[in-house]
Amino acid sequence: MTFFKKLEKRVSAKHTYLCVGLDPVWGKIPEHLPNSQEGLLEFLLQIVNETKDHVAVFKPNFAYFEALGPSGMEVLQELIQKIPPEIPVIGDAKRGDVGHSSRMYAKAVFETFGCDAVTVTPYLGHDALEPFLDYPDRGVFVLCLTSNSGANDFQLPNLHLKVAKKVREWNISGNAGLVVGATRPENIAAIREISGRMPYLIPGIGTQGGDLRNTLFYADDGSIIPYLISTSRSILYASSKEDFAQQAGTTARKLQDQINLCRSNL
Amino acid sequence: MTFFKKLEKRVSAKHTYLCVGLDPVWGKIPEHLPNSQEGLLEFLLQIVNETKDHVAVFKPNFAYFEALGPSGMEVLQELIQKIPPEIPVIGDAKRGDVGHSSRMYAKAVFETFGCDAVTVTPYLGHDALEPFLDYPDRGVFVLCLTSNSGANDFQLPNLHLKVAKKVREWNISGNAGLVVGATRPENIAAIREISGRMPYLIPGIGTQGGDLRNTLFYADDGSIIPYLISTSRSILYASSKEDFAQQAGTTARKLQDQINLCRSNL
Repeated sequence: MTFFKKLEKRVSAKHTYLCVGLDPVWGKIPEHLPNSQEGLLEFLLQIVNETKDHVAVFKPNFAYFEALGPSGMEVLQELIQKIPPEIPVIGDAKRGDVGHSSRMYAKAVFETFGCDAVTVTPYLGHDALEPFLDYPDRGVFVLCLTSNSGANDFQLPNLHLKVAKKVREWNISGNAGLVVGATRPENIAAIREISGRMPYLIPGIGTQGGDLRNTLFYADDGSIIPYLISTSRSILYASSKEDFAQQAGTTARKLQDQINLCRSNL
Repeated sequence: MTFFKKLEKRVSAKHTYLCVGLDPVWGKIPEHLPNSQEGLLEFLLQIVNETKDHVAVFKPNFAYFEALGPSGMEVLQELIQKIPPEIPVIGDAKRGDVGHSSRMYAKAVFETFGCDAVTVTPYLGHDALEPFLDYPDRGVFVLCLTSNSGANDFQLPNLHLKVAKKVREWNISGNAGLVVGATRPENIAAIREISGRMPYLIPGIGTQGGDLRNTLFYADDGSIIPYLISTSRSILYASSKEDFAQQAGTTARKLQDQINLCRSNL
């Protein structure tokens, strides 16, 4: 089953557009858990377990595991294996290199680590993205307009629109999406006009303070999955005590409800 | 000692501007070596050993190790530890993400894997590069104009010049460089004019067929290290037989000589 079919099935079954990012920082893990590889995995699996009913997709961020070295990458691999198979996994890796190196990154994220989808960076152009898009059963979210202040340096005012246009052209297998931040909802309408129908992975709600209502309004394209709303820290670190997982679950449910309420009022 | 001081010392001692990329592909490793983690490490250490007298810097490519999973990352870590300490190591990782994630990538490449320098991608702007530049003793090579065909999609005609301008502004600690491909030497003069003095990491000579003479001519800025000329496959796979390391050494020496001859005739 392709990533987007699996995602559609999940969204239809659970009525959720929520993407939970898994970005574990050692220092923020509740003190009662062991300060070890096992403790880290337990922290993440408890988060997965308590949030999973409210989640369309999980998104582990490779940076946080790489910082821990080979043993961190082992945790990442085991985590992905243990996420329930009906929930798709986006490898948040922001990869992109010249063709032969991108092929290795695609192999790493899709085969070695077993992710259903990936985030990639477009700076190197078509031959950097093609090795990812060449997996028709996997999803490829290309950075378009990101939620950080640095989006002003190169992406705005025009580059992000050029990226949206090119990704639409390159999306031959229908497995591409775009990363579009929620912190500039006024820009989303123009991106949607250029990209046509494709799912957006939308970070920037929560800690970064993006505007949910306007984001959903402008990102909608009338399809089953116009977007996934991604949040990490507000769920992962909802509590630093023994109830961290339950609090994560409660926060995830609230955000799921908030998104659905916004959708029904658009 | 900072990366650039270490590099200057190396270039002065060995009269070489050669950067050897370490991009190991399982299928291309000589058959007489064991098909295992140990075999891979032995292959790379023999290449390092036979080429090191001709090399200014080694550049392991993270993609090729990641594709092998956590055990590949162990090989990468051990390889970097075993490269002679007087030879700087550039982690070819093409990383770049929003600030808090980039901080994790910087920690991974500089601390966990112990690289002296890194390659990064500028799409996400200043807050994505700052966590790397914030290590004043490490080098940060920002993708500017790459050697692949995809450079035409977004980098040309103007974006790469905007990147060169911004990196010059952001280079407060004097630890930045640019990645500039050798496949479009006619563009290098304009980049040099905008970037001012900073070292270029130049791939695209060798397998990709870049023009060495014109590249060196346009990239020169009169400083001690105007550039590093990077090649990978032509050295790593100079022979698939038992003499692979000696052949790699011979190829490295020839390229060192060729670069120095070009330099003396400019």
